[in-house]
Amino acid sequence: MNKKSLAILLRARIMPNNSSKLAVSPLPNAVHKILSKSQHPASKNGNKPPREFEHVRDSMHLAISMNKTEVMDAVLNDFSEGYFSLSYENRRRLLLVLAKEYDLNRTQVRELIKQYLGVSGEDAQSAGPGEDGVPATFYRIERNLRHALKPMYEALFERLNMHPGGLKVLSSLRADILYILAEENIASLRALDSYLKEKLSTWLSPAALELHQITWDDPASLLEKIVAYEAVHPISNLLDLKRRLGVGRRCFGYLHPAIPGEPLIFIEVALLKNVAQTIQEVLWDDPPIPECEATCALFYSISSTQPGLAGINLGRFLIKRVITLVKRDMPHVSTFATLSPIPGYTQWLLSKLASQSKLAEVEDCSQSSADRSGCTFQENLLEPEEEKALMDLSEEISAGKNGMEVMWNLLTSRNHEWSNSAKLLSVLKPPLLRLCVRYLLQEKKRGKALDSVANFHLQNGAMIERINWMADLSDKGLHQSAGIMVNYVYRLENIEEYAQSYFSTGHIHASDDIHSYVKPLKEHEVMTDQRG
Amino acid sequence: MNKKSLAILLRARIMPNNSSKLAVSPLPNAVHKILSKSQHPASKNGNKPPREFEHVRDSMHLAISMNKTEVMDAVLNDFSEGYFSLSYENRRRLLLVLAKEYDLNRTQVRELIKQYLGVSGEDAQSAGPGEDGVPATFYRIERNLRHALKPMYEALFERLNMHPGGLKVLSSLRADILYILAEENIASLRALDSYLKEKLSTWLSPAALELHQITWDDPASLLEKIVAYEAVHPISNLLDLKRRLGVGRRCFGYLHPAIPGEPLIFIEVALLKNVAQTIQEVLWDDPPIPECEATCALFYSISSTQPGLAGINLGRFLIKRVITLVKRDMPHVSTFATLSPIPGYTQWLLSKLASQSKLAEVEDCSQSSADRSGCTFQENLLEPEEEKALMDLSEEISAGKNGMEVMWNLLTSRNHEWSNSAKLLSVLKPPLLRLCVRYLLQEKKRGKALDSVANFHLQNGAMIERINWMADLSDKGLHQSAGIMVNYVYRLENIEEYAQSYFSTGHIHASDDIHSYVKPLKEHEVMTDQRG
Repeated sequence: MNKKSLAILLRARIMPNNSSKLAVSPLPNAVHKILSKSQHPASKNGNKPPREFEHVRDSMHLAISMNKTEVMDAVLNDFSEGYFSLSYENRRRLLLVLAKEYDLNRTQVRELIKQYLGVSGEDAQSAGPGEDGVPATFYRIERNLRHALKPMYEALFERLNMHPGGLKVLSSLRADILYILAEENIASLRALDSYLKEKLSTWLSPAALELHQITWDDPASLLEKIVAYEAVHPISNLLDLKRRLGVGRRCFGYLHPAIPGEPLIFIEVALLKNVAQTIQEVLWDDPPIPECEATCALFYSISSTQPGLAGINLGRFLIKRVITLVKRDMPHVSTFATLSPIPGYTQWLLSKLASQSKLAEVEDCSQSSADRSGCTFQENLLEPEEEKALMDLSEEISAGKNGMEVMWNLLTSRNHEWSNSAKLLSVLKPPLLRLCVRYLLQEKKRGKALDSVANFHLQNGAMIERINWMADLSDKGLHQSAGIMVNYVYRLENIEEYAQSYFSTGHIHASDDIHSYVKPLKEHEVMTDQRG
Repeated sequence: MNKKSLAILLRARIMPNNSSKLAVSPLPNAVHKILSKSQHPASKNGNKPPREFEHVRDSMHLAISMNKTEVMDAVLNDFSEGYFSLSYENRRRLLLVLAKEYDLNRTQVRELIKQYLGVSGEDAQSAGPGEDGVPATFYRIERNLRHALKPMYEALFERLNMHPGGLKVLSSLRADILYILAEENIASLRALDSYLKEKLSTWLSPAALELHQITWDDPASLLEKIVAYEAVHPISNLLDLKRRLGVGRRCFGYLHPAIPGEPLIFIEVALLKNVAQTIQEVLWDDPPIPECEATCALFYSISSTQPGLAGINLGRFLIKRVITLVKRDMPHVSTFATLSPIPGYTQWLLSKLASQSKLAEVEDCSQSSADRSGCTFQENLLEPEEEKALMDLSEEISAGKNGMEVMWNLLTSRNHEWSNSAKLLSVLKPPLLRLCVRYLLQEKKRGKALDSVANFHLQNGAMIERINWMADLSDKGLHQSAGIMVNYVYRLENIEEYAQSYFSTGHIHASDDIHSYVKPLKEHEVMTDQRG
């Protein structure tokens, strides 16, 4: 590929350049938001006026109610094109029409239910059961009931799935639906979403996905998508992209045959001598080591390109297949690890600090014994020596009534000023690391790790190996996890066992190093309570 | 590819040679039958004794009841391997266990039904409806009911679909199921089959299928499958195969990413100057014409490789895509036609001849006016001059009380002797052609053409163009349609319209030439009746 022309392409726009394609493309959330709100840019083409709502509604009706024929293709194309020409407001209207007016036929359902109860009543008394105890009429009515319980919009979904390009339209529809649901909770639309999600996850079987190694020889139309959708560590320029596809690096994507030329999800891998501790050494390292010297494959970024496929875990299968592939091609690589962000850490920590520091202010939580349920149990998040170090700072740098308040003030200071001061760093490091391990290892939601990335890797069978201080100095890294990153490790011989025990008991496997943060040698009552 | 080695390969065995693969391969019906009945040939490998039924049953149970984890892959592999090691009798037992013991939870269904009726009763009187008139609880109960109505075996299907190689296992399972159902009608197994068929057809979306042009450069493992599965005009030797992939010929297959290296269905195309009248000229013609002189693309064979996908119409999409592709690459090709067998003609004709000739024997069908429904309406299938010509033969060659009996006797003579006599051919030709048109054009089943191949092309939007005498002189051709073949033509500008009208009214489009057979200039009462 011509380097200059790709550079121009990337400079000109980070998004696909064909505006009609753009509409069908699943957009990263932010872009999606902006685009959806405004009129669709296809109007720039000048040759097609935006379709009227009524027209699209009619073609949607046809697509659902027509009997199967060859004409269906034209109808589905018409609907898809029309849908993408609508304004955000009209898309929303249309989706609500779909959810409400193309729902179940409840009269039919009730009719069949009565038949069913009738037959099962008869059966109980007389009626010769079939050869296997269940009369054949049962199967018939159950089948009819099953069909009657399918909403009418199922026809639209099924037909789009069959139609070239239709799966992508469905993914875009769902992205819009999720966007609407994030703003308002509409029961009918939520039911439609859960139905569509179920359909999409059965259609996107990992067995039908193709693992493709993305290289510098791939078409620019595919590479620009890697640039556009890299969500973890944005690709800053052409050189950055080329390095991520070059020697010592790998990039693998999952392609679905019905959504050609665009990976649904992709993973970036660095071949290293040791598990990296900072993202800086991965993204801006010295010339990479010779690949034959690598012993570690480090997964440093996983990005999914389709907001409409949210909740459908394709990454799990991708990681497994990539490990198998790398192991086959490079038998000397024996460590498979990640260098992962901890997206929820700061947010969790700040809210903990705020509530605990307020409680501490009240000095004496008088109700605590009588009405403990309404009052968060008071706990000093800090160890005595951490508290002292922070309070010592209080006088010179940051005011605060207690250690937690000082910490809160420091962490929320503008431009992460704390990260530029050696003194502040040395004071903050112990509590930030220790509480980070507590967050990863002990904070749960419905028995699973609270942190979404942790939950993702743990359910795939990884263990927590190490946390790394000052590992991501980007704004985003400082903001979401105070610059801390974590290495998860996939040990081939334990993957199944770890996944299984995490699934059934919520147990999180972690290295001794990790455990040492939350098991200080001196017994400490609060932390002991927490460990149980 | 090395010619000699492929020749050896093809001579050695026409079926894939890896016996463990063989088991998973969907086999052509005949082979399937033989293999399934006997012990599985994997035992030839000598290293693995056939698994016990109980073991496979246990792994099936695990595959259905386990919660989603990484271990699932191992369980599914174990089940698949075990299944294929079972004898036919044990496979049958296992499938019945699956159908009966992993059916619905009917107690749960009845429980939810009561809840549903309760809520809909409340709703009618009081209960504030949601923002759209339907209370949110409705959606919840409907969703639960929908899930409860899924048989437990759905989990096995869904999981196999997700699993590499699993789709092929499912297709093999269904081939076995269809084989059992052809022998005995078991309600629970029929319900399971209809459930599985629905699943398979949604998973095998044509949008996910890849159109692949099969050439002599393809791997032998793929080519041997073309040889093994060609169902219409068997491939006799290596030269035959090579010619079907060479100059003036095309072969296209649909590949599914989850069933790699094996087309689900393939179509063979000849590039010709005119629409061929006989299969002989397609299969054993002189050197093919230069491709630039071709104006006609003739589809002379469509074969599906998966008996387990019976009833799932993949051919429709294949034909459409092949037409589009050929038109793009060869704009000078303007005619898209088939040279098709008429698989049901002789069978239909013989049964008609037998019943009518018996009726004619009774001379006076005394009940016919009083109880016509129980008695097939008497009709001489032959025109007066045809009757006379056949009765003239009667004295010298074949005995018979009337023309229809003579005809029946001739057609059922050993080794199709009639086809070797110029005299018999000249006498049989007019009624055989005329009745063939009647069969194609007027004999319906539920409003659709009785002949399966006719129904296939007509629903795809083709029209009947021409019937050809002595067009297939193979044993199979003489046996199934007295050597007659038919050209269906796809006219791009009419495909959608024809498909639509055939679908909605059963109307069959045909050329004037075809109509002339059944509209003789002399009005004839019986045929006029039939035409209505």
